[in-house]
Amino acid sequence: MVGKQTWAIAEGYIPSGGAGEDDQAMVSHETACILNPGETDAQVEIMIYFNDRDPAGPYRHTIAAQRTLHLRFNDLEDPEIVPRDTDYASVISSDQPIVVQHTRLDSRRGGVALLSTTAFSQ
Amino acid sequence: MVGKQTWAIAEGYIPSGGAGEDDQAMVSHETACILNPGETDAQVEIMIYFNDRDPAGPYRHTIAAQRTLHLRFNDLEDPEIVPRDTDYASVISSDQPIVVQHTRLDSRRGGVALLSTTAFSQ
Amino acid sequence: MVGKQTWAIAEGYIPSGGAGEDDQAMVSHETACILNPGETDAQVEIMIYFNDRDPAGPYRHTIAAQRTLHLRFNDLEDPEIVPRDTDYASVISSDQPIVVQHTRLDSRRGGVALLSTTAFSQ
Amino acid sequence: MVGKQTWAIAEGYIPSGGAGEDDQAMVSHETACILNPGETDAQVEIMIYFNDRDPAGPYRHTIAAQRTLHLRFNDLEDPEIVPRDTDYASVISSDQPIVVQHTRLDSRRGGVALLSTTAFSQ
Repeated sequence: MVGKQTWAIAEGYIPSGGAGEDDQAMVSHETACILNPGETDAQVEIMIYFNDRDPAGPYRHTIAAQRTLHLRFNDLEDPEIVPRDTDYASVISSDQPIVVQHTRLDSRRGGVALLSTTAFSQ
Repeated sequence: MVGKQTWAIAEGYIPSGGAGEDDQAMVSHETACILNPGETDAQVEIMIYFNDRDPAGPYRHTIAAQRTLHLRFNDLEDPEIVPRDTDYASVISSDQPIVVQHTRLDSRRGGVALLSTTAFSQ
Repeated sequence: MVGKQTWAIAEGYIPSGGAGEDDQAMVSHETACILNPGETDAQVEIMIYFNDRDPAGPYRHTIAAQRTLHLRFNDLEDPEIVPRDTDYASVISSDQPIVVQHTRLDSRRGGVALLSTTAFSQ
Repeated sequence: MVGKQTWAIAEGYIPSGGAGEDDQAMVSHETACILNPGETDAQVEIMIYFNDRDPAGPYRHTIAAQRTLHLRFNDLEDPEIVPRDTDYASVISSDQPIVVQHTRLDSRRGGVALLSTTAFSQ
């Protein structure tokens, strides 16, 4: 089955500005797109790393078998929210093979800017 | 020959808005760019994964030897269309080595935003 | 030495429109950024693949030792130019280890859109 | 521990124009996002490669254990600044496993354009 159990995203930054809250799709956001292509639900733990403080987490999520979860870092709340306008990075660990892709939408200037990359695994 | 037989794209999202249908190049779209650098035609199958329903597919395409196909997910119809404004992911399987790169053009705000990444293989 | 000898870029598309020829940096372009980190000059050959015709090339370039060449596909002329508004893909072969990253700047709508990804190697 | 000790970014270009210096987040910039997920501080050396001159560096930085540093190439000063409007590439070497992602923000045209990719390692 395609996938790896450990992934890292060295880039992370949620802009605080951007389009209004009336258009959820257009709010500046940062996403870990997680695919579980296998037959078993995946238990996923995310750790968030910062420049000048100890890591936050683990954030725990279940990705059902043969499902994808596009998880916005904006929405992480437990054990704590991810601060805006702050550099961070993340490591995503799973008990099943998964695939992770990192995407950001930045609407600070009214338009849309996008970035995306397959996360790092080894 | 350069290439792998299984690829995954964890990110997928086709915005419904954007530039008019009169300019096909500028319609918001999501593409799997597939290169078959080998001497044998490649039989490719794509499965689409969602957040809350069973996968769709397989979508079957032939990539001729030494040709590239930039396949828009927008254009997939058989066995079913890919819904707009919906998170998805995909796995691309081939009987020959291929190379896959994922690209999106987003024209919702009138301008152009682009993202691209080499898909995941192992 | 970091690097590989064979790389592939499945995405390729040079928009014909965009900012005027008076600002070379802002003309829509597609680039293969090639780094030769080693102590020996690298002889590089590029093949271009299309959807509906035989491949073009080889395009031959030398990347000097410990130098980088950001090669615009727009500028390829020998043995033939790369057509605009046309899907293509490329394979880059070198007799020395190199690193390849793919970048596009799209200025069709007056603003700037960017995409980039580390090319595929194995 | 996830990570590699040698990374390469073949693309590099810092636009000289863009938003004013009054908004640091919006100044056109190029970043190497470095994550040190391990328990030991990482000593990192960056070499910068050009098209027509010898490499610059090494630039030395310490990434503390379990911390991330989003290092702007704009800010490199010792042993020399990175020239603007100039093609470059980089190799990042570490005595500990790290993860590197490359990001650019381009604000030359008033809006925002973004690119990002996991850097190359082997």
